[in-house]
Amino acid sequence: MIRRKRDPFRGRLALPGGFVNEGETVEDAVIRETREETSLEVEPVEILGVYSDPKRDPRKHVMSVVFVGIIDSGIDNAGDDAEKIEWLDEEKIEPIEVAFDHMRILDDYKRWKASGGTYWSKKRGND
Amino acid sequence: MIRRKRDPFRGRLALPGGFVNEGETVEDAVIRETREETSLEVEPVEILGVYSDPKRDPRKHVMSVVFVGIIDSGIDNAGDDAEKIEWLDEEKIEPIEVAFDHMRILDDYKRWKASGGTYWSKKRGND
Repeated sequence: MIRRKRDPFRGRLALPGGFVNEGETVEDAVIRETREETSLEVEPVEILGVYSDPKRDPRKHVMSVVFVGIIDSGIDNAGDDAEKIEWLDEEKIEPIEVAFDHMRILDDYKRWKASGGTYWSKKRGND
Repeated sequence: MIRRKRDPFRGRLALPGGFVNEGETVEDAVIRETREETSLEVEPVEILGVYSDPKRDPRKHVMSVVFVGIIDSGIDNAGDDAEKIEWLDEEKIEPIEVAFDHMRILDDYKRWKASGGTYWSKKRGND
């Protein structure tokens, strides 16, 4: 997780990510944003889910595509929106510490590790 | 598939779909667009993939989230952008007949039926 340097949710934990540029694929944006915030080179492996609840970002209606990836190379070093990088035991993350709906995404990631599947904001049986 | 009533790709085959409204989740947009174009009520089951190649739509850079769904109810009746609805054997669809990158999506759907997974424009080993 990264510790956010800026508002919204300044000082909270978040998954690395950001906005897709026009002319860029979403998978390239994942690689670029992770590089900018963590200095790590990642390769997308699967799509975990698509999160588009209109209230999930206080700034405006934002949709996030979340990938599961592997780290290919690099030494972690916080940059851009990240104040620092924290390697955490996922069972010990405090929900109150987590920005946006990223705790929900982490919960879906635990479901994915247990039984696969894909996830979205209004998926039934997933609240 | 629907037979497109309007440009781009007027007269070609396409998967039902359309643009997400501000304040609407992507899964609700899938349900609404399918209803508008086919009169069928669908329930999303899994995310097949996210397609965001900048050249996939001649109008502008568009990202599509593609869901696999089941038909809950309804009698098919073409509406909105759809000139008519065609129920086709997926093995007999001519690629030249298919709009946008929807043939690629159909190919990924065949992969999904065989072995699951999720798909995106630059996924390796998938050209």
